[in-house]
Amino acid sequence: MPITANDPNRKSWLDVPNDSDFPIQNIPFGVFLTKDDVVTIGTRIGDYAIDLGALQQLNYFEGIDLTDDMFMQDTLNDFISDGKKTWRLVRNRIADIFDATNSELRDNEKHRETVIFKIEDVEMQLPVLIGDYTDFYSSKEHATNVGTMFRDPANALFPNWLHIPIGYHGRSSTIVPSGIPVHRPMGQTLPNGETTPVFGPSRLVDFELETAFITTDANIMGENIPVHEAEDYIFGMVLLNDWSARDIQKWEYVPLGPFLAKNFASSISPWIVTMDALEPFRTKGPIQEPMPLPYLQEKGKKTFDINLEVSIQPENAEATVISKSNFKYMYWSMSQQLAHHTSNGCRVNSGDMMGSGTISGPTPDSYGSMLELTWGGKNPITMSDGTERKFINDGDTVIMKGYCEKDSTRIGFGEVSSKLLPPFFRK
Amino acid sequence: MPITANDPNRKSWLDVPNDSDFPIQNIPFGVFLTKDDVVTIGTRIGDYAIDLGALQQLNYFEGIDLTDDMFMQDTLNDFISDGKKTWRLVRNRIADIFDATNSELRDNEKHRETVIFKIEDVEMQLPVLIGDYTDFYSSKEHATNVGTMFRDPANALFPNWLHIPIGYHGRSSTIVPSGIPVHRPMGQTLPNGETTPVFGPSRLVDFELETAFITTDANIMGENIPVHEAEDYIFGMVLLNDWSARDIQKWEYVPLGPFLAKNFASSISPWIVTMDALEPFRTKGPIQEPMPLPYLQEKGKKTFDINLEVSIQPENAEATVISKSNFKYMYWSMSQQLAHHTSNGCRVNSGDMMGSGTISGPTPDSYGSMLELTWGGKNPITMSDGTERKFINDGDTVIMKGYCEKDSTRIGFGEVSSKLLPPFFRK
Repeated sequence: MPITANDPNRKSWLDVPNDSDFPIQNIPFGVFLTKDDVVTIGTRIGDYAIDLGALQQLNYFEGIDLTDDMFMQDTLNDFISDGKKTWRLVRNRIADIFDATNSELRDNEKHRETVIFKIEDVEMQLPVLIGDYTDFYSSKEHATNVGTMFRDPANALFPNWLHIPIGYHGRSSTIVPSGIPVHRPMGQTLPNGETTPVFGPSRLVDFELETAFITTDANIMGENIPVHEAEDYIFGMVLLNDWSARDIQKWEYVPLGPFLAKNFASSISPWIVTMDALEPFRTKGPIQEPMPLPYLQEKGKKTFDINLEVSIQPENAEATVISKSNFKYMYWSMSQQLAHHTSNGCRVNSGDMMGSGTISGPTPDSYGSMLELTWGGKNPITMSDGTERKFINDGDTVIMKGYCEKDSTRIGFGEVSSKLLPPFFRK
Repeated sequence: MPITANDPNRKSWLDVPNDSDFPIQNIPFGVFLTKDDVVTIGTRIGDYAIDLGALQQLNYFEGIDLTDDMFMQDTLNDFISDGKKTWRLVRNRIADIFDATNSELRDNEKHRETVIFKIEDVEMQLPVLIGDYTDFYSSKEHATNVGTMFRDPANALFPNWLHIPIGYHGRSSTIVPSGIPVHRPMGQTLPNGETTPVFGPSRLVDFELETAFITTDANIMGENIPVHEAEDYIFGMVLLNDWSARDIQKWEYVPLGPFLAKNFASSISPWIVTMDALEPFRTKGPIQEPMPLPYLQEKGKKTFDINLEVSIQPENAEATVISKSNFKYMYWSMSQQLAHHTSNGCRVNSGDMMGSGTISGPTPDSYGSMLELTWGGKNPITMSDGTERKFINDGDTVIMKGYCEKDSTRIGFGEVSSKLLPPFFRK
């Protein structure tokens, strides 16, 4: 079935600003709360939020096999469960409804009032109920930077890194959408030169620039997903700020990995951009040498050219861009990650989320964390108000943006933006 | 409110075998499927499964503030959300209904037929929808054994171990109830002396003898739970076999911890034994030296005397008991684990599960894994049919049991039993 929604010549009868992340070729999926306190599944075109629940009630999805209340839910999990064919049918239909040549909704004022909201009048929610959250560690540059700083520059990568898309389980309960503030975590740390730890506010709060993909029901327990099928089970992508407390991490992570250093918060952009929308931006990933084991081998353009950008906005000051990176730098592809994840029979469900790991590019201005950008705090970054940052300060807002651009089409993610609040502790 | 359900003199009008784990003083909670394909919440007395949904419909819970369909659900999450006061009211009421002196249900044949099933006529399900699963590493003996084998006997424990209840996130999607078989996982391993990994069936499949506790909604994100309040948020406990593939683990776990070595399966016993039922079996844990940081300090009897036992049953042979241990050996208590877990503001929801980590006692016959019992395969264990085991063979069933005993009362968990099947892989 062709992805007619992607037609680059298509225009919408809704006004779309020139630099918008959300032209009619995007059609992402999300969940929002209206001013009337109704939660619904929706999409976005330009600066308008579209209520898909209302569209469905008005019969605009006639002929597509959907349960009656498919879009009148507070998560996308059931829709995602319906599989790739349904996602494509619905996305193509939405593009048709909002196509400049289609007058059906355009000329029906009553319907328009029920279906279309200004984006500033809705409150974005988490788009899915995330059952399990996995975070990978798939940027060679990031792993090399960390290994160089904390271990041995000559052997920065661990021996397993070039063979395994290394990953670990994260915490689902503290994943929040863009806009929700995050408290600086309290925790145990070991002061330099001491042998006894202390408990207090983390002093080294950091962001991690990541993307994440959302899966559909992929397998039953005990069954794997071959690498060449893996993409069929990926619904779409979001931006992810995987908040990290470096001092807590350093003291706790041996031997079982990061725990409280990470699970206080992970922030995501609220619109899931579908793999169909990203299709025109496929590109080749880095050469993998040594060659991966057969269960991870794949050919062709298996990654995507997604520009990424991080800014910090101090309280009462302008934001400063501190990093520009790209998803295409990632060493391991999403299909390799998913094939590896299920290679032991691990079950993957609709709404599970898998983070890329910190996305660092090859140059120092493309690193994906303060740890790397300031090289462990040695090279502070100057903000627009003249203050310096080694890590994130209370009151700072961390803003991540991402978009693809090719010829005249731009498909974007919007942003994930979250403010760091002072710590909180109850005795 | 007194826990009247615990009265040791109480007898039930239902027949309870002498050595049963489920006297009327237990009243655990679970979810089961009846022969009529109805899923319901239930409890167990002796060898009878009791349909709490049916009891509620027949008004046996009148006067207790419960939503109308509280027990006609397929998970206990909503009931657990109702909090400790409600759990206690319901458990006390059930004890009253089945008390030998109460004729109401006893003498109503029609009601009895709707409510009471033989245990062999129901199929136990997962008792809760587990949002997040955390596994701790809280047995000093286990951590010392592993450190001695793999690192340095003189420095077997990492420097953080005596200060932090070390834990990591596990995978919720592959937690299964007792009785569900498990496939031997495929995975990457590094053969001894080689530098290039191979992909194939794990050769070192192991069990881990653990318990786990199930939480209620404990906090909002950003808020901690003080250690002295933590027990109020624990609903009850189950037995947990945290299946592990030692060869996959060894190659993948640096630096982010265990991943595919663990997430192929975790098996739990289906009845959640409440903390109220375990109350009479409180005991003191080991002395903690050095003293933990203030946020982890607690006084009194903070652990429980729970006897644990592991057997292996080869195909077509009798089971052989291979370990006897006890929960009381754990260094860190459940309240310390929960206080630590939330100390950074990590949100804990109803139905979350937290594993103890492998429970190894002080003597070699009380170790909680094959890795320790055979000391890395050096000392094989002989089965009832004369065959030897270094790790788990295809066709073996691993059976874990647990119970408390004091004076004339025995409160048990039943068992978690699961068979290891051959590997499966789709190219």
